[in-house]
Amino acid sequence: MSERTMRITEARVTPILLSDPPLLNLQGVHQPYATRSVVEVVTEDGTVGVGETYGDRGCLTALRSFAEHLPGHGLTEVNRLWDVAAEVLRPDTVDAGLLAERPDKGMFGRQNLSKLHAIVVSAFEVALLDALGRTAGLPVHALLGGKVRDRVDYAAYLFYRWDQHPVAHTPSDDWEAALDPEGVVRQAERMVREYGFRSLKLKGGVFPPEEEIAAVEALHQAFPELPVRLDPNGAWSVDTGTGVAERLRDVVEYLEDPCTGAEGMAEVHRRTDVTLATNMCVTTPEEIPGAFATEAVQVVLCDHHFWGGLRATQQLAATCRTHGVGLSMHSNTHLGISLAAMTHAAACVRGNLHACDTHRPWQTEDVITRPHRFDGGAITVPDAPGLGVELDREALARLHDRWVRSDVRARDDIAAMRASDPEWTMPPIPRW
Amino acid sequence: MSERTMRITEARVTPILLSDPPLLNLQGVHQPYATRSVVEVVTEDGTVGVGETYGDRGCLTALRSFAEHLPGHGLTEVNRLWDVAAEVLRPDTVDAGLLAERPDKGMFGRQNLSKLHAIVVSAFEVALLDALGRTAGLPVHALLGGKVRDRVDYAAYLFYRWDQHPVAHTPSDDWEAALDPEGVVRQAERMVREYGFRSLKLKGGVFPPEEEIAAVEALHQAFPELPVRLDPNGAWSVDTGTGVAERLRDVVEYLEDPCTGAEGMAEVHRRTDVTLATNMCVTTPEEIPGAFATEAVQVVLCDHHFWGGLRATQQLAATCRTHGVGLSMHSNTHLGISLAAMTHAAACVRGNLHACDTHRPWQTEDVITRPHRFDGGAITVPDAPGLGVELDREALARLHDRWVRSDVRARDDIAAMRASDPEWTMPPIPRW
Ligand SMILES: [Mg+2]
Ligand SMILES: [Mg+2]
Repeated sequence: MSERTMRITEARVTPILLSDPPLLNLQGVHQPYATRSVVEVVTEDGTVGVGETYGDRGCLTALRSFAEHLPGHGLTEVNRLWDVAAEVLRPDTVDAGLLAERPDKGMFGRQNLSKLHAIVVSAFEVALLDALGRTAGLPVHALLGGKVRDRVDYAAYLFYRWDQHPVAHTPSDDWEAALDPEGVVRQAERMVREYGFRSLKLKGGVFPPEEEIAAVEALHQAFPELPVRLDPNGAWSVDTGTGVAERLRDVVEYLEDPCTGAEGMAEVHRRTDVTLATNMCVTTPEEIPGAFATEAVQVVLCDHHFWGGLRATQQLAATCRTHGVGLSMHSNTHLGISLAAMTHAAACVRGNLHACDTHRPWQTEDVITRPHRFDGGAITVPDAPGLGVELDREALARLHDRWVRSDVRARDDIAAMRASDPEWTMPPIPRW
Repeated sequence: MSERTMRITEARVTPILLSDPPLLNLQGVHQPYATRSVVEVVTEDGTVGVGETYGDRGCLTALRSFAEHLPGHGLTEVNRLWDVAAEVLRPDTVDAGLLAERPDKGMFGRQNLSKLHAIVVSAFEVALLDALGRTAGLPVHALLGGKVRDRVDYAAYLFYRWDQHPVAHTPSDDWEAALDPEGVVRQAERMVREYGFRSLKLKGGVFPPEEEIAAVEALHQAFPELPVRLDPNGAWSVDTGTGVAERLRDVVEYLEDPCTGAEGMAEVHRRTDVTLATNMCVTTPEEIPGAFATEAVQVVLCDHHFWGGLRATQQLAATCRTHGVGLSMHSNTHLGISLAAMTHAAACVRGNLHACDTHRPWQTEDVITRPHRFDGGAITVPDAPGLGVELDREALARLHDRWVRSDVRARDDIAAMRASDPEWTMPPIPRW
């Protein structure tokens, strides 16, 4: 491999907006458009590698600062990206808002400088691996030690939702409203029919626990063969979480973040012995020792976007395996680049892996030429060089143009909810 | 990369004997010849990748059984080697002696089936990475995410020793005896002069603690700038270990395995707050949670030979970093293939890494064409494709021929000691 082939000459960050349906959660509702960033690295011989991550204003600024320092860097120098991040993104150079507690902290877990480093490194690690794989003629999974499974199972991500956004002239889709057990079951039926999912997950924290218990029980009744999960995003008190866990103990595969914080999780588990999963109380390495020692979580939902990339995901998986903690994968709104990256990472995780989360069916737009298709609820692991996806530059330009012409610059489910309910504020935690 | 280039057509295991000096330890003394295995994988286009590991009879048998199942396997399928190991090396196919407690357990830590898998996978993982790197034109470190340091520091590994073996017609070298503080300091002086080491480690457990304390103090006086470690291989009781730790608290960088077992280690640390390292009580993933929870160890000495390879070493490093536990690297008698592998792995470990152990200066024979040279106590990380070493087939044949014509089939420091002291048996633990 020549130096020339392997040296980065340009790094680009393109913010985009993509249509998003009115999916409900604890904080409110998804906005009609979600921000996202597509990153690219280009080598001297014109090889391009792509990655994808959050598009919020502060993250975008950090990605752009980081990108300026990449030219000259080698494609293989992934581990050194952490040093670049530490040099470029410092307390005095980073938007203080990115490091402060936010009202939506619950959705993304702890915010601090090292997590920002992990987010930025992750986006570019994926791009470097894509470019390196293309250059070396190897799929990304081969650069991670090789796939141990040929297909990665995903779960149907069920949401309470309206049929359309309350704001006029915003995108719509052909899914009906789901606001009660019947609606949720109908949604699941379509998801399973169209995509073949063999695992179900309901985003909760929207309605009082009794209603969500009824929805989960209805799902279990309609799909007795399929594992079901419920994720209220930490909306419940320890007592409420304990009560739900007891009610659903024979129904759920696991309960995800019934309470906010490792202490409450540990208490619910101690009281009920029900398997608890999280993408909220263990989202950084420093949260692991305490949470594992107290058995606060039995399943960690890894997410390469905030754990520092695909290698960091493998390392997290090894740490979990060492501690006898299970693994699944978390998802935020994402496109095909990240779905490919998630699939490569999941393909390389040794041992048991719960079906991964994905928001993908809800996003009808993409920036790759051949969007993935779920077959039996799974994605076949690509063996083509790199991630195995091709950027659709026309689509990227169109979604970027939408970003340029819009003033949406961050995710704000609370504000989106106010379009329907002007009095809406972030609910108190615990809400129930 | 074509299928043809990437498919393994042959896997070879070559047992060898190499000359070893009379280095003393708790159990006895190194034999005049040490067993070692060199493994090779060959692809259809003739690319060869090499690895190196233990050569004991049982290990050799396991390596050979495993090797039979490799043809047809792809070079990139490293993670799947674990499945191959699980299929081939089962309780009913493996020499029971390999899984039973051995008198020398203390030197290698726990023995079980999963550890045997890790040993076998490791040897071939290195060979696959070497071959893949050669094929793709990438150094092994690039396949691990890239080096974060250009040089890897090693420590001078000081041993109490005789000037020669007690058995006639065995190999000798030009090092003098070292059996007291003065001899140890003279050995260190030569090691530092010839190799430039900037860290010192004394293998202890040979003489009563007072004598070894005196040796460490003499080293500290002679080299006040250099960190010093003492490793009695778990020879001491908790009280003795506590006493030594208190005496050497301002002298040692860390004490290595003062006692046998995590409980004793935890107690010594609790009593003294002195940093403790281990390659004995944490040698498998299953030992980590307990040892870390009780703060039994502050530094883990990773060793790719028994942790499952270079990727597993990176994952172990990540687990240690997550728990705030430091990292160094353990060494057994080894050749240049493993020194290259250790150097690539160490080059990719993010964050602080104590100078790595190496027995290398004691081995005057090698199976590579250009044996490594220490410069300032460090090895420069190779950037050539693969491991960056070339097999010396003539040397390999000569050392294999020695193995064929000898009846040495395993390491047995106790038996070797009997050549000098016919009454010698494995000392009781704790010895002091
Ligand atoms: Mg969640
Ligand atoms: Mg040791």
